[in-house]
Amino acid sequence: MRAHERLHSNLPVDRRNLPGHRVFFGRDTPLQLDCGAVLADFPVAYQTYGTLNKNRTNAILVCHALTGDQFVAERHPVTGKDGWWSLMVGPGKTIDTNRFFVICVNVLGGCMGSIGPAEVNPATGELWGLRFPIITIADMVRAQTMVLDHLGIEQLFAVIGGSMGGMQVLEWAALFPERVFAAVPIATASHHTAQNIAFHEVGRQAIMADPDWCDGEYWRVGKRPHRGLAVARMAAHITYLSESKLTKKFGRRLQTGKALSYGFNVDFQVESYLRHQGITFVERFDANSYLYITRAMDYFDMPARYGGQLANAFRDTKVRFCLISFTSDWLYPTPESRRIVHALNAVAANVSFAEIVSNAGHDAFLLDEPDFRRVLGGFLAGAAQHRGLAAANSR
Amino acid sequence: MRAHERLHSNLPVDRRNLPGHRVFFGRDTPLQLDCGAVLADFPVAYQTYGTLNKNRTNAILVCHALTGDQFVAERHPVTGKDGWWSLMVGPGKTIDTNRFFVICVNVLGGCMGSIGPAEVNPATGELWGLRFPIITIADMVRAQTMVLDHLGIEQLFAVIGGSMGGMQVLEWAALFPERVFAAVPIATASHHTAQNIAFHEVGRQAIMADPDWCDGEYWRVGKRPHRGLAVARMAAHITYLSESKLTKKFGRRLQTGKALSYGFNVDFQVESYLRHQGITFVERFDANSYLYITRAMDYFDMPARYGGQLANAFRDTKVRFCLISFTSDWLYPTPESRRIVHALNAVAANVSFAEIVSNAGHDAFLLDEPDFRRVLGGFLAGAAQHRGLAAANSR
Repeated sequence: MRAHERLHSNLPVDRRNLPGHRVFFGRDTPLQLDCGAVLADFPVAYQTYGTLNKNRTNAILVCHALTGDQFVAERHPVTGKDGWWSLMVGPGKTIDTNRFFVICVNVLGGCMGSIGPAEVNPATGELWGLRFPIITIADMVRAQTMVLDHLGIEQLFAVIGGSMGGMQVLEWAALFPERVFAAVPIATASHHTAQNIAFHEVGRQAIMADPDWCDGEYWRVGKRPHRGLAVARMAAHITYLSESKLTKKFGRRLQTGKALSYGFNVDFQVESYLRHQGITFVERFDANSYLYITRAMDYFDMPARYGGQLANAFRDTKVRFCLISFTSDWLYPTPESRRIVHALNAVAANVSFAEIVSNAGHDAFLLDEPDFRRVLGGFLAGAAQHRGLAAANSR
Repeated sequence: MRAHERLHSNLPVDRRNLPGHRVFFGRDTPLQLDCGAVLADFPVAYQTYGTLNKNRTNAILVCHALTGDQFVAERHPVTGKDGWWSLMVGPGKTIDTNRFFVICVNVLGGCMGSIGPAEVNPATGELWGLRFPIITIADMVRAQTMVLDHLGIEQLFAVIGGSMGGMQVLEWAALFPERVFAAVPIATASHHTAQNIAFHEVGRQAIMADPDWCDGEYWRVGKRPHRGLAVARMAAHITYLSESKLTKKFGRRLQTGKALSYGFNVDFQVESYLRHQGITFVERFDANSYLYITRAMDYFDMPARYGGQLANAFRDTKVRFCLISFTSDWLYPTPESRRIVHALNAVAANVSFAEIVSNAGHDAFLLDEPDFRRVLGGFLAGAAQHRGLAAANSR
């Protein structure tokens, strides 16, 4: 048994039995992190759909969001539910796996098989816990390049992602422009605002306030900060929706057949929904991963890295961009996308931009939004033509 | 020592030593609550500023918000800070205590001397805890009428309040129109939306997730759910501000003299600010009170009580209304005030409405907003003239 796997029987998800792939990068392929630390001898988990063509030119990297994972378009091995982007990715779908080879990598710091705080540090044989180094969005992208090297893919046809996935897309285009033909940042921003940071900080404080968090050592002592993580999820979940969506979906409706209880049990459907979001989340997600990934997002500030001028990140870029935002997204509202478009315009990049009318809030990118699918599908079709990719055999 | 006071030495604030007034309503003056329970033999705390005139016609009731209290315009006995509306209430100020007699009552369910879960149930000699009955905004107002009876005030010149205070103002106008000459609901709504309920539910779950909450029995066992209450406050506090205010006030600025820590300590000023909000709040507020008062707000739904037609609440009203909202308030945004204005228009009520341009979010009503002060001052001056109140002697 490898050192990485020694403690796995304690963990909620046995990573040895997950579908998909897990590549171990040895000591000869270290990863230098932004914080200064170096990762060596570490696993990265990923899943693929479709077939890589002979020229290795039809690969699409899908980047997942904060609480997503590599199980994009299949029954999730832990929850048993559809993959988070099953609506979008699959045979004949907008991201057509008959045509494209789709890859999704569990982010660095994640909890579905990639190196993260719930994994074992092979140098010590102990769980990393809070000794795991702070990672950044750029670090996540660097780890993804290692997976691409492993797969022998020089250039991605496209890199696509929503929310934190969109941040990874921006880093791909900025750091590795030669490896990206087309980039689709969706419902995202080039930096985290004070309000974004504030909501994340509430989530982190909720986790750390849970005595079962045990200063991050909960695995070691056989506990899990379920209550704190559930509260963090509930607070975050509100920001993923919109006031109008919540009103339409729940309004002030009471639990079926119930009157006001004049107590603290669930009265309103929206309370039940939120509690359910919290409860189901803790079954599949690691609290320390939540700390690390939210921190990575809060540290995300591309303009700052380029002298306050986001445009400098994309000088002479040949990447074709398609930015997409949603009208009711108040977490990463349209002006954040427009800021990126302006930066791309300033360097005469090839960029298209669509704001989709939707009342679904930030989560719109995960849902069945026909206009969104049409925009993304149209952009991919055009880009594929420019890239010289034949249409799918099935068509 | 009265039964009410027996356990006070355990409590954070010794209510016997607070400034202001505390009236005990005996068994002969019970209060019937909306939930069906009856309160008898209970205290209500209040504070006053200025002098009641001979005709008892110059009283203004100020209604406080969720975490406010009766210490409107003086050094707060617990925090040592200015009263929450010191900017607005005082000699020569917009609500001029040289002219008006200002009363503020600690709401039912509160924790600054009025009956609430941290008080003793005289029938049992035990702390109420979660055995305290669920209260509503209308119940709060009924308790306030008892204080007015106690003071011999038949009609208020005005009832004024922001946020939950504004909900009380609406209930005053609906339930006791003959006792109100003018009503000023500020930054409020006639019902709580699904999003409002959702944010409150996160706060309640944060409190209940704290093991020191002890199913509401924390006082009894010498604990306090400080961590859960602080998280609840942090989440709520974000909703009191606006994205633009947070950006202007903090942006992504780091703690003075610091670089990114690549850890989980405070990096950003906004994190430090939020943590401070949480920490200072728990010193002055009771967690169970937070549960009860948020529940009262979530239950607030005036249209539902009047057959879905808010206008029915105000038929034939003679009350003069002034509604005020703030452009950047996303907790109770302007359309919520407009909905009330439309209902009042439908019954030909005397109503004026102003939306104040401000980037301060919901908290704008607590801050120095000159346009807000001008609108409120102008309305009060006009109403006072109609009421036949002479200008202050000092003028």
